[in-house]
Amino acid sequence: MAMSRIDGRTPEQLRPVTIERGWSKHAEGSVLISFGDTKVFCTASVTEGVPRWRKGSGEGWVTGEYSMLPRSTNTRGDRESVRGKIGGRTHEISRLIGRSLRAVVDCKALGENTIVLDCDVLQADGGTRTAAITGAYVALADAITWAREKKLVRAGRQPLTTTVAAVSVGIVDGTPLLDLCYEEDVRADTDMNVVCTGDGRFVEVQGTAEAEPFDRAELDALLDLAAGGCADLAALQNDALARTVSTA
Amino acid sequence: MAMSRIDGRTPEQLRPVTIERGWSKHAEGSVLISFGDTKVFCTASVTEGVPRWRKGSGEGWVTGEYSMLPRSTNTRGDRESVRGKIGGRTHEISRLIGRSLRAVVDCKALGENTIVLDCDVLQADGGTRTAAITGAYVALADAITWAREKKLVRAGRQPLTTTVAAVSVGIVDGTPLLDLCYEEDVRADTDMNVVCTGDGRFVEVQGTAEAEPFDRAELDALLDLAAGGCADLAALQNDALARTVSTA
Amino acid sequence: MAMSRIDGRTPEQLRPVTIERGWSKHAEGSVLISFGDTKVFCTASVTEGVPRWRKGSGEGWVTGEYSMLPRSTNTRGDRESVRGKIGGRTHEISRLIGRSLRAVVDCKALGENTIVLDCDVLQADGGTRTAAITGAYVALADAITWAREKKLVRAGRQPLTTTVAAVSVGIVDGTPLLDLCYEEDVRADTDMNVVCTGDGRFVEVQGTAEAEPFDRAELDALLDLAAGGCADLAALQNDALARTVSTA
Amino acid sequence: MAMSRIDGRTPEQLRPVTIERGWSKHAEGSVLISFGDTKVFCTASVTEGVPRWRKGSGEGWVTGEYSMLPRSTNTRGDRESVRGKIGGRTHEISRLIGRSLRAVVDCKALGENTIVLDCDVLQADGGTRTAAITGAYVALADAITWAREKKLVRAGRQPLTTTVAAVSVGIVDGTPLLDLCYEEDVRADTDMNVVCTGDGRFVEVQGTAEAEPFDRAELDALLDLAAGGCADLAALQNDALARTVSTA
Amino acid sequence: MAMSRIDGRTPEQLRPVTIERGWSKHAEGSVLISFGDTKVFCTASVTEGVPRWRKGSGEGWVTGEYSMLPRSTNTRGDRESVRGKIGGRTHEISRLIGRSLRAVVDCKALGENTIVLDCDVLQADGGTRTAAITGAYVALADAITWAREKKLVRAGRQPLTTTVAAVSVGIVDGTPLLDLCYEEDVRADTDMNVVCTGDGRFVEVQGTAEAEPFDRAELDALLDLAAGGCADLAALQNDALARTVSTA
Amino acid sequence: MAMSRIDGRTPEQLRPVTIERGWSKHAEGSVLISFGDTKVFCTASVTEGVPRWRKGSGEGWVTGEYSMLPRSTNTRGDRESVRGKIGGRTHEISRLIGRSLRAVVDCKALGENTIVLDCDVLQADGGTRTAAITGAYVALADAITWAREKKLVRAGRQPLTTTVAAVSVGIVDGTPLLDLCYEEDVRADTDMNVVCTGDGRFVEVQGTAEAEPFDRAELDALLDLAAGGCADLAALQNDALARTVSTA
Repeated sequence: MAMSRIDGRTPEQLRPVTIERGWSKHAEGSVLISFGDTKVFCTASVTEGVPRWRKGSGEGWVTGEYSMLPRSTNTRGDRESVRGKIGGRTHEISRLIGRSLRAVVDCKALGENTIVLDCDVLQADGGTRTAAITGAYVALADAITWAREKKLVRAGRQPLTTTVAAVSVGIVDGTPLLDLCYEEDVRADTDMNVVCTGDGRFVEVQGTAEAEPFDRAELDALLDLAAGGCADLAALQNDALARTVSTA
Repeated sequence: MAMSRIDGRTPEQLRPVTIERGWSKHAEGSVLISFGDTKVFCTASVTEGVPRWRKGSGEGWVTGEYSMLPRSTNTRGDRESVRGKIGGRTHEISRLIGRSLRAVVDCKALGENTIVLDCDVLQADGGTRTAAITGAYVALADAITWAREKKLVRAGRQPLTTTVAAVSVGIVDGTPLLDLCYEEDVRADTDMNVVCTGDGRFVEVQGTAEAEPFDRAELDALLDLAAGGCADLAALQNDALARTVSTA
Repeated sequence: MAMSRIDGRTPEQLRPVTIERGWSKHAEGSVLISFGDTKVFCTASVTEGVPRWRKGSGEGWVTGEYSMLPRSTNTRGDRESVRGKIGGRTHEISRLIGRSLRAVVDCKALGENTIVLDCDVLQADGGTRTAAITGAYVALADAITWAREKKLVRAGRQPLTTTVAAVSVGIVDGTPLLDLCYEEDVRADTDMNVVCTGDGRFVEVQGTAEAEPFDRAELDALLDLAAGGCADLAALQNDALARTVSTA
Repeated sequence: MAMSRIDGRTPEQLRPVTIERGWSKHAEGSVLISFGDTKVFCTASVTEGVPRWRKGSGEGWVTGEYSMLPRSTNTRGDRESVRGKIGGRTHEISRLIGRSLRAVVDCKALGENTIVLDCDVLQADGGTRTAAITGAYVALADAITWAREKKLVRAGRQPLTTTVAAVSVGIVDGTPLLDLCYEEDVRADTDMNVVCTGDGRFVEVQGTAEAEPFDRAELDALLDLAAGGCADLAALQNDALARTVSTA
Repeated sequence: MAMSRIDGRTPEQLRPVTIERGWSKHAEGSVLISFGDTKVFCTASVTEGVPRWRKGSGEGWVTGEYSMLPRSTNTRGDRESVRGKIGGRTHEISRLIGRSLRAVVDCKALGENTIVLDCDVLQADGGTRTAAITGAYVALADAITWAREKKLVRAGRQPLTTTVAAVSVGIVDGTPLLDLCYEEDVRADTDMNVVCTGDGRFVEVQGTAEAEPFDRAELDALLDLAAGGCADLAALQNDALARTVSTA
Repeated sequence: MAMSRIDGRTPEQLRPVTIERGWSKHAEGSVLISFGDTKVFCTASVTEGVPRWRKGSGEGWVTGEYSMLPRSTNTRGDRESVRGKIGGRTHEISRLIGRSLRAVVDCKALGENTIVLDCDVLQADGGTRTAAITGAYVALADAITWAREKKLVRAGRQPLTTTVAAVSVGIVDGTPLLDLCYEEDVRADTDMNVVCTGDGRFVEVQGTAEAEPFDRAELDALLDLAAGGCADLAALQNDALARTVSTA
């Protein structure tokens, strides 16, 4: 493990993470999160009421939408609104974000309110979906605080059961690495995204062999690394939420 | 583990699996696979040439498309062709099928040929994506045999490096179970799809906590179960391919 | 008329027809029908209520949707769901199926229920629309029996007024032929699809000159041939419905 | 047959037909045709070259597009461009127009040129598709004259083999009637559109039982009526083409 | 200003304008307007009720839809219904038509009724949007008269506050010109569309430098020219509305 | 003019404007511009080559795409990519941005290169299109500097002829105001967007009466105000471009 990474990190080290709250004056919760050069703008929008299929259930709903700005990557991509349809990857990540956040929300305590988490990638350098989930959690927490203050959520109810964060791990040149930047991601044999709650349990494990399939020992090493990374991110989320923010 | 399952299986038992080859007179490979009441029709279509972005590389391409017939489920769903767009789940599974099969294909040995695996669900009872991958492998193997006979693949090259199969596992009422039927799937706290190669390595691990997040011990139990199930499916795939088929 | 056809049939002979009921455990009626190598899977889905424009009329509604699996033909076609729009031919045939079945349904007797007939072509070898209509009738009959047992249709009401079947006819090398297979269809100068009720009357007559226009005598010969073919199909439909089927 | 029709016509009488050529200064052929209150604007656009699938064949291509202005009917309909998809009826009629005109075009004599017939219904009162075909033929004839003058069609070649016209027939209150207006069309038990060439042969016969199926004797009566109507229309087409037109 | 224009007009002269009312038997108001060779068919459709977001306000709604027939121009364009989406220019002009007409409608006096103005360009030779607005006003006036007669608009209320008309102006070879035809429009350095009410005030001013930006003096000259042209058009609108029309 | 504005500005005062360059490490030019609380992220993407219709002309092409993040406004809007089509307003503004920038680009000097300006609104508080144009100019200038350094633009050629900026003006409670914030915009009777070059000439003038039409004197007052605002913005653009920026 003496190999030094492109940016000088150790294998089990996150990139520099920044979490800025109160970035939008309109949204009930908003966060600009960066994992190194990856920057994602996450907003949480609260509306009273729930989708039709959930009406009368007494339970709320939380969902996510992910998108990349056309020039968030090295080469400009076509806007999905111009193409007239959403690509498979966008759908897949939007669904992942929604599922991950619902894992830490008590929908009964939320009551019949809907929260939409919009995660727009401003600059991409690997790990956009994990940064999105990690930032969206903080925006969600702010939105829920807002909803409690506005009495949309009944007094004494806490819809959040714990924190949730996500990180990528992968095997590059035989070494398991935490939080891959784009250049590492491209070279990785195996790529895994892991979503963990604040109490160290798993919400999602999505591992894919890009080239060679991976064996059980490699899988175990990656899971260890990811669990550690998520614990570090949970601490950063809690720090960010402890700070005072002046929103317009 | 004394609990008996809805259909009387033991926790580590697959549903009855049937693999019928040669179901279409047009396709280069075609399979009707059933995992219990789940029935998927898989066809492999070979065309010379590759998508534009791959031209001149000397390498082939394998991709998948998944779809459910409108009345494959208990309630009729709208056709995606009528709605004019493809849902997130369809995209996600189509991409998974393509990735899983490419993991066992040597694209250089395939040469500049494209194989499309269409997986149409005729009847759904849980595990449609895992049955699709398992059946698509067999259709792919037949299509490659056809391509070798037609000399599209150069003599002495074998594009298939091993077999690939997939199975679902999940935790129902605290017990890890193999190959969930729909009724079990609905009740599962955690749901995981695992894709393994014939030599026991992992291509994809996709685990999701539907309700409670899962801990590391549960994750390990599920991975053990899935690896065993995939090994059983690999044996069934090899048996099916060893039989003689009369195609029109 | 001494000419022998590609498959040895006489000019006025149908291809071998099979009608398997109960092919789906979910649908209220389901049939796998084959006209030679043409195989169509027909399901009938019953829902209470009718489209908005028909509400309060006391009358039911029956409609059809036709689709071809991408590899049902010799060359793989793009999925219409992927292209994001439905082609003209698909629309046209879907509408034909709906009209043909409504011709034998007493919508008042059906009451405010909707039945959708999905006809998915698994393998195409000419005559897919005529096989679809013929099979859909049988699926519809089973669905109506189900609806009567469930008391969705009032006691003593019989929504079906008679049977309905369809067959293609065409002029190949100057000879009028019944039930064209793909190879004959391609070579036909004139192609006609005829839909007849069980009492020998016409619901639809759609004749098209593919090359040379046809004169009145040729038209009369084709109509005779088609009427005979539909009578044969009506007998096969009645036979199929007389059999006992064990559906899940 | 003593019954008098809504507008006083005899059963075998066409509505007043007007054919105005040279209605557009841009199109190579253009016609405003009226069948009573039904008014259709038909333009023929010639372009050199053919669709990709036909390149190198030495043969031309003729196709049609049909559309209704939103307020061509009694109640305003949504524009198909706004809905983002074309309805089944529009597709079906566009295809019918193309097929009907191709029946009288010698594609080899046309050479590798494409002619698109746009038929836009300005006012609808029944029989829009038959007026469209009848008017489109005249626009096509003018466009072909233009193409011959421009030497796009080789000297001495005549791509038109004969004329083509279309008319509707139907059974209203037991009486077969020619060229139904909207009010008659709504009340008809059976509705049939017939396309005939100038030499009295059939290109298309599309009969549909709207309510009661029809028997063979009724079918024969309708075919007689339609053949007579098409002969009358052919005379009117020839008269119109014999007139001198001053186009800008 | 001695330069003579392509068609011999003086710089401040409109093309010949014709306004024919009662062109459709279905629409509540309908006009065929021509500005020289530009011909636009405008229909006004009245429906009781308003869009959902306006319900209960007691106020009506007026909106516009603009479209060009595919062969209204020199080269045939694809239909937007076939492409499946509406282009930017079409959207922009549709919105402009709606805004322009709403400027002279007292929505309270109109009551909860909706009027849609469909403007379909039959032949284009420059100035299609200005002809559309000018003609749509006349169709709107007829539709409002109809609505008052049908008592949809309460007695004594007059929803129209004044007339509205539109004209293009532009700088060609240094000279400001009124009502550009296509050939002038193509050569113009600056192109401006101006919408004025009958009392000489401005509703819309849309000026664009196609090549060289324009200075304040040029802008002033164009505005003078446009105001004069709109006054001329208002007189023609009033003349047309003063005539008696026999609608079917 | 003693009235004080919501935020204390004088009628002819801009909101605080900030222009941050180098905000993206991927784009050839990138700017975060704010006009008060309106924040727009503008990127310029350079690609060699031009659209097909411009190939071989020796001239370049510049185009714009405008979009609002779903929660850039007070109420969350649906993503246009999810709705599957782009709204009229988005199209209109995208086209305006492209036209405005092309007014100051010498396409011949640019050579056959394409520059796309993406303007994504992160937070909206009135004037998003004017901020977009003003910021896009700065991003464009940086991209052109990059292209000259990369020798994509020939030595000695300067594709930019001058600067371009845009500002809104409007009449609120009878007073003409510069650079409206959202709250002023909602209350304005007349709303005008003006695009001016650095030498004080007009590229676009788009004035709309939202309620009462405006007379010539009001129009003149608005044009004066806008010209002054654009001159102020041009100075700010030049200041921003004079600063040194460290881009990754």
